[in-house]
Amino acid sequence: MPSDQGNGATRAGTSAVRLSHRDVDRARRALAGRVHRTPVVHSGQLTARYGVRLWMKAENLQRGGSFKLRGALLAVDRLVAAGSRGVLAQSTGNHAIAVALAAREHRIPAMLVLPSDASPVKVRRIREAGAEVVFAGKALAERAAAVLELRDRYGYEVVDPYEDPVVVAGQGTATAELIEQVSAEGGRLDAVVVPVGGGSAIAGACLAAHPHDVAVVGAEPEAVPALTAAMHAGKPVSVGGFYTIADGLRPDRIGDLPFELAHREVAAVVTVDERAIADAMRATLLHARLVVEPAAATALAGAVRYAEGRRIEVGVLLTGGNVEPDLLASLLAESRPTSTAGPSAGYIPWTDSLGGPQG
Amino acid sequence: MPSDQGNGATRAGTSAVRLSHRDVDRARRALAGRVHRTPVVHSGQLTARYGVRLWMKAENLQRGGSFKLRGALLAVDRLVAAGSRGVLAQSTGNHAIAVALAAREHRIPAMLVLPSDASPVKVRRIREAGAEVVFAGKALAERAAAVLELRDRYGYEVVDPYEDPVVVAGQGTATAELIEQVSAEGGRLDAVVVPVGGGSAIAGACLAAHPHDVAVVGAEPEAVPALTAAMHAGKPVSVGGFYTIADGLRPDRIGDLPFELAHREVAAVVTVDERAIADAMRATLLHARLVVEPAAATALAGAVRYAEGRRIEVGVLLTGGNVEPDLLASLLAESRPTSTAGPSAGYIPWTDSLGGPQG
Repeated sequence: MPSDQGNGATRAGTSAVRLSHRDVDRARRALAGRVHRTPVVHSGQLTARYGVRLWMKAENLQRGGSFKLRGALLAVDRLVAAGSRGVLAQSTGNHAIAVALAAREHRIPAMLVLPSDASPVKVRRIREAGAEVVFAGKALAERAAAVLELRDRYGYEVVDPYEDPVVVAGQGTATAELIEQVSAEGGRLDAVVVPVGGGSAIAGACLAAHPHDVAVVGAEPEAVPALTAAMHAGKPVSVGGFYTIADGLRPDRIGDLPFELAHREVAAVVTVDERAIADAMRATLLHARLVVEPAAATALAGAVRYAEGRRIEVGVLLTGGNVEPDLLASLLAESRPTSTAGPSAGYIPWTDSLGGPQG
Repeated sequence: MPSDQGNGATRAGTSAVRLSHRDVDRARRALAGRVHRTPVVHSGQLTARYGVRLWMKAENLQRGGSFKLRGALLAVDRLVAAGSRGVLAQSTGNHAIAVALAAREHRIPAMLVLPSDASPVKVRRIREAGAEVVFAGKALAERAAAVLELRDRYGYEVVDPYEDPVVVAGQGTATAELIEQVSAEGGRLDAVVVPVGGGSAIAGACLAAHPHDVAVVGAEPEAVPALTAAMHAGKPVSVGGFYTIADGLRPDRIGDLPFELAHREVAAVVTVDERAIADAMRATLLHARLVVEPAAATALAGAVRYAEGRRIEVGVLLTGGNVEPDLLASLLAESRPTSTAGPSAGYIPWTDSLGGPQG
């Protein structure tokens, strides 16, 4: 673990340059036996459908239903070792579930700040883990303000989902495993594609991929292109709060630390529209037989877009699987609108075929 | 491979006694690199929900969407080596997909006899693999008669899904891997639960489990209790063609060879009703984040029933994931009836909670 991580609100500019793939290695050792080594799944049907060789890291099968437990466990470990008697975090949902589970392991209270349009499944899972949920607006800035207020009121320590080097190193373990697992199976990754919300996944992927000849590619919804905008501006900027089906990717600004790591390392950032996200989610369900949430499907859609016209092997970080039953149903039932899937449900496309030959 | 397998229509009574776990070992070597070593998946949420430690072998992620490719590859290998120029099989669907894929690998034609109420997804996948589908009634006897007629007409060799020792040994490799994978992760299986249709899965499981101290348990729908009836009668009997949501378990009579192997080895046979099958399928979808077909869910429901009141660790063979989108949708949308899910769709229950704490 880096030695300068402070209280989870560490500023980038100092810590990012000190982070390296060795921090990911250390994180892997600290997490051994505490998180699942999730499988890397192939799908001949998806390969045939999309014309690209895909290696999908199924973090939807991770404890807590997403890769976020990796970073949260390490961060909460450290805070408890330093004497914390309670933890606090803002999140669109999966980081909050992860912090709640980590806090439960240490038998300390957790308070999680979520947007008012958070996924109900995620809210329920946080509460099932025994933690408290506080709602604060829809924008990242509103949640951040609520966290500061609650920290002052309760004295809990903050587990930042994007700016904490420990969290970023922990999230990088998922990509490190993916690269290792593909290699062990005789594959040769040209690129790994990860979804971009607040940026912890892509920052971790940059650390993990650094010693390897593997391009890191970010995928984000056209509606909330936070990394694309930051790359153009040369710094993190808010892109506003447009709706995307990918609730986990709604943060409208990439974190400082993730941006500092990503802007030098990423090979490309691709944006995908809502139809492509829904199509990838349905294809993963019906052809790869995995339930993934829209954020994970965004990575698959981005991988397909990135691979167009190239003969490459692509790793895809399927980040999570905490998804509303109603959204799954609306993907399955032809264009049937649902109340919880939001305005984009009307755009959900249908494909005529179950894909090409499988193998 | 056993040396006496003949043409796939081998009678039991001679071949069964010669089959052993060594045939499963040989099958594993012959299949190495040709089938996926599918992951064994844990689900803290399912463990909490059902109160039993479950290790689920995700053969829904297998090539062709089910464990059936294992036996079919070996059987078609052998037939091609003996000079076959085409293959023929009857099946409720998954064995047919597997034979179609195996035939495609060898570039020979395949003709598959399915019931008229076969899953449309399975029919489509057979055709996508380039094979021909022939429909014949709904009962096993009707398909068997059609196979004999087609064999005489076309001179194709038959790949029997239940009576062929090569197929049974191949199917056993799934259970052998499950036992090995759980052991490698420090688990200790008390039992493995497999669904019972024609019987190849449970016969293979009996072979694979024989050297280990692991009980083999069969799970079948109350509506089609072919193994239960055979155990009572002391021989395979037809139980009639009642409807079950588990299309893969609709064979109304267990095979002779599977029965000969199973009746001595199985520790128990549990039957589960349609509600329990649907509930297990929905739970697997929402909590374990895997798409499985009703036959696989029957194994999970059977495992839960078998484990009631015992403190045991149970392996579950999730045999396949070829399922109708409409059926998934009907499981997700409250009691919404669908045309393809059949009469039992009305019985599909809902649970109020997404389960207990996960971990």
